[in-house]
Amino acid sequence: MKAVVLLSGGLDSSTCLALAVRELGAGEVLALSVSYGQKHAREVRAARDVAAHYQVALEHLDLSCCFARSTSSLLDHSSEDIPHEDYAAQLQGRPGGLVSTYVPFRNGLMLSAAAAWAQSAGAERIIYGAHADDAAGRAYPDCSPEFVRLMGGAIREGTGGGMILEAPFISSTKADIVRTGLELGVPYELTWSCYEGGEHPCGVCGTCRDRIRAFRLNGAEDPLDYRTATR
Amino acid sequence: MKAVVLLSGGLDSSTCLALAVRELGAGEVLALSVSYGQKHAREVRAARDVAAHYQVALEHLDLSCCFARSTSSLLDHSSEDIPHEDYAAQLQGRPGGLVSTYVPFRNGLMLSAAAAWAQSAGAERIIYGAHADDAAGRAYPDCSPEFVRLMGGAIREGTGGGMILEAPFISSTKADIVRTGLELGVPYELTWSCYEGGEHPCGVCGTCRDRIRAFRLNGAEDPLDYRTATR
Repeated sequence: MKAVVLLSGGLDSSTCLALAVRELGAGEVLALSVSYGQKHAREVRAARDVAAHYQVALEHLDLSCCFARSTSSLLDHSSEDIPHEDYAAQLQGRPGGLVSTYVPFRNGLMLSAAAAWAQSAGAERIIYGAHADDAAGRAYPDCSPEFVRLMGGAIREGTGGGMILEAPFISSTKADIVRTGLELGVPYELTWSCYEGGEHPCGVCGTCRDRIRAFRLNGAEDPLDYRTATR
Repeated sequence: MKAVVLLSGGLDSSTCLALAVRELGAGEVLALSVSYGQKHAREVRAARDVAAHYQVALEHLDLSCCFARSTSSLLDHSSEDIPHEDYAAQLQGRPGGLVSTYVPFRNGLMLSAAAAWAQSAGAERIIYGAHADDAAGRAYPDCSPEFVRLMGGAIREGTGGGMILEAPFISSTKADIVRTGLELGVPYELTWSCYEGGEHPCGVCGTCRDRIRAFRLNGAEDPLDYRTATR
């Protein structure tokens, strides 16, 4: 085993997996999927489908206990609704910078779990799908280049050296990622991004809007069935 | 709530808790205890007893799923025995530097969970008991000053700023910690350090040896009942 890829089942991490498999081969990659109490537990199924498509081994961890007290609107136990706006609009009303779907240090926790798995499995690399759009305006500070630099340093140091954290899309927009993924033939019809828990993506939450726009910017159409007027 | 203290139930973290309570008051401190599959699950009971002594709220998390594939001798599912030597002797046979009781990125994972809790609870500080003896010879790289610096940076950045990681004993020996604890009246009879899973501490594992020595260097006697010849 050479690399552990954090695989949410969404567009960014599925494209990360495609890159890793192309470089290393499916047998050298472990995909790690995490439940953290998200409303869109549907994405865990998508992670399984994407991993199966690439014939990559998948492990699933349930870390939802760590967020039992969080009021993030992304969590199933939250009484707050998922905002139906894009991130820029959401941030306008929040001078502190965080959006309501931010989950406290979620990515730090998932990367730490990935480091534990990677070292246990003898892997030397951890790959995750942080990208520039998510870090913009500090909507998700656990996607910023500085976070990746520091967390990567902590993982390297804390595992005794040698372990590398990679975020291949840290300087890319979601449209860049879709372009790469279309070239690689990523099965985007198997992925799931929507923050709502429905059977079909809502088309109006921040991540649905981002995703639809990213395909449009590539002159392509998102293969998901939104069944809404906004598509 | 102002601070989250990672409380294993051992000597170092219990002394951290005593310092935090003295500074902030019991009502402003949350103790966080973690199961990670350790052989010495007995320490979780000690954490509960120490938190109760200080009238501090305690939360317990089970993160053992993250270490299911680790072969660390500290874990209950491991077939490897806990070494009955001090750390220096253990490291002589391991040029890579890690001791067999090192658990992959365990402290990174626990600190990440603490960050999630702290941010959820509106706390601004995370306190943990890393100290110089554990980092010596890189036996436990997730106790080193450099790890604390990088992990602290990742937590500050990844939570959107403002969260501080503190390791008040990072430059202290275990003997220094015991001296501080004896001054503060820490109820060391309630704590648990031994890596074995027995009802009485073994007195011969690395952490028992360290602990006994730390009391002796202060001209004091460890209040635990070792029931062995090595005391």
